[in-house]
Amino acid sequence: MKAVLYEGNRQIRTGVSQPEKPGIGQVRIEVAYGGLCGTDLHIFYGDMDNRVGKPQIIGHEMSGVIAEVGSEVNTVQVGDRVTVMPLNSCGKCTACRNGIGYICHNLQVLGVDRPGAFQSSWTVPAGIVFPLPDSISLKYGALIEPLAVACHDLRMGRVKAGESVVVIGGGPIGALIAMVAQHIGARVILSEINAFRREMIEELNLGIQTVNPLEQDLVQVVRDWTDDGGADAVIEVTGSKSAAAVMLDLLRAQGRVVIVGIFSAPPAAPQVDLHRVFLRELQIQGARVYESQDFDQAIALAASGALPLEQIVTHVISMDEVGQGLQQMADGAEVMKILVNCEA
Amino acid sequence: MKAVLYEGNRQIRTGVSQPEKPGIGQVRIEVAYGGLCGTDLHIFYGDMDNRVGKPQIIGHEMSGVIAEVGSEVNTVQVGDRVTVMPLNSCGKCTACRNGIGYICHNLQVLGVDRPGAFQSSWTVPAGIVFPLPDSISLKYGALIEPLAVACHDLRMGRVKAGESVVVIGGGPIGALIAMVAQHIGARVILSEINAFRREMIEELNLGIQTVNPLEQDLVQVVRDWTDDGGADAVIEVTGSKSAAAVMLDLLRAQGRVVIVGIFSAPPAAPQVDLHRVFLRELQIQGARVYESQDFDQAIALAASGALPLEQIVTHVISMDEVGQGLQQMADGAEVMKILVNCEA
Repeated sequence: MKAVLYEGNRQIRTGVSQPEKPGIGQVRIEVAYGGLCGTDLHIFYGDMDNRVGKPQIIGHEMSGVIAEVGSEVNTVQVGDRVTVMPLNSCGKCTACRNGIGYICHNLQVLGVDRPGAFQSSWTVPAGIVFPLPDSISLKYGALIEPLAVACHDLRMGRVKAGESVVVIGGGPIGALIAMVAQHIGARVILSEINAFRREMIEELNLGIQTVNPLEQDLVQVVRDWTDDGGADAVIEVTGSKSAAAVMLDLLRAQGRVVIVGIFSAPPAAPQVDLHRVFLRELQIQGARVYESQDFDQAIALAASGALPLEQIVTHVISMDEVGQGLQQMADGAEVMKILVNCEA
Repeated sequence: MKAVLYEGNRQIRTGVSQPEKPGIGQVRIEVAYGGLCGTDLHIFYGDMDNRVGKPQIIGHEMSGVIAEVGSEVNTVQVGDRVTVMPLNSCGKCTACRNGIGYICHNLQVLGVDRPGAFQSSWTVPAGIVFPLPDSISLKYGALIEPLAVACHDLRMGRVKAGESVVVIGGGPIGALIAMVAQHIGARVILSEINAFRREMIEELNLGIQTVNPLEQDLVQVVRDWTDDGGADAVIEVTGSKSAAAVMLDLLRAQGRVVIVGIFSAPPAAPQVDLHRVFLRELQIQGARVYESQDFDQAIALAASGALPLEQIVTHVISMDEVGQGLQQMADGAEVMKILVNCEA
């Protein structure tokens, strides 16, 4: 059985993993597709070496079919097509005790802190497995996890129909956020420097307007677009200092910015205009991963066929090609979502 | 008739003002007491010279008695004891059109952008005048405005009974926030470097715990106080970089920080740990001034006698002494709230 292993220092190789017999409350999944994520890129670069073992099987976006169930599992059965919410909470910290275990202080993400999905056979607790309706193919089932991120981010930002929303960053997460926001009934501008990604989003023909912030003054564009009022919400997905510098200037009074991007921690933390936060009563809201209800919403949305999910998949590669795929993402090449065929 | 005039460059003098006959919808108030505020200190220092005319009658915290009413005024009458919500909105900007005129993009604050309350006789629109119940003396009526700030800040922070709240900054606004939070049923720690102010707050005997952050590690104190969980809310009232650096570390997962202090704008804006905002799904919420409901709540609270408001008044000075009072505040002297006797 094949597996994709991170070995440190930008080294990814294909290795061998043994199928693991499911224990009590566990299931073994034959993985169909994985998805490459920005987090995988951070791992590739060594940014997460304090969390990621070496070697570590990476991958946390996936779909597959239940191949074996352990005892005391009654929610899924062999043959079910599924995806996985790849979180493991400690159950003991204050976040867990307060019912928000999805942002557990000791959160472990499968594919980061523990062995992940880029292997032919993956054994996980049944409690984090979500069945896929027939209308969702295995290929697009691997998009449920990033789609759940988008659902969570918009929920945390309380985005609703009729609102004006600016998404900063048009990679797969930004594109999905823009698609879901548009679907909810919001008006959306998406800011992205990569021309290929801008074109791809324009070609969805959903009415999402794209801006290249290196060529256009994003603040002025948004002012014109909102009759000088400013956007109701900004979803920041880049984690860049340039975005931190501009995001608050895009908002109307009492507008919200949702922080999805991974910013540098102190001492390299960005400057933030807290005077403007005060002056306009702005809100900065963090949004991380997802909880069950976001997976439920993502599955319902994907099943409805309302979103052209297939259009964001630009490449389907083999497990042997994951290193090259990550390098393409790092190079800002003409890629949006890269899927990994994990079938044995 | 006397008036307190700002003349630029740390110059305050007592001058003469002519009583202004109230026009349509206006009232003339014989001012009883004013209150010195941190904003007056900013004016004194010249920080607000782009907004404050020279000379300008300053003062925006006050109480007084209606002396004369213009036509079409039916909400108050001669002899009524009142206070004033010193805001003037444009009625045209998007904030005004969205029903949040109290943070109008062109907001004018009486005593800052327009002539203020530190004069024997003040003519203002009747619509911003609030009657004082009999149980509120004129002296304590001058505390309604800062008390309304405290009510607004806690409302914006959604602080409720049983929560753990850290107030950073123990001047009059921080002290009032701590008092109201305690009254609501929250547990309160107040961080303040001035020993006189800490002692004054401890002597209220309300159970507000004070910390000197120069001597104690505030983060560790709050961790111990919350069984390692972190505070539900932080109210930041100092606008200092040291507070910006620590405020997010005080919070539990999904905790809120309310920005009340006046931070420097870019390029001197503080660094903010947006990575922690993401990781713990924290919320940073701006809170500025107040709206009518906050004045209503402040008046009801003051009228109830539940708060020992009288204890935060350390000095009552004459109009001739306003410059010295501001200098005392600037020097970090043993002062909390300074009232100004404005009676002719």
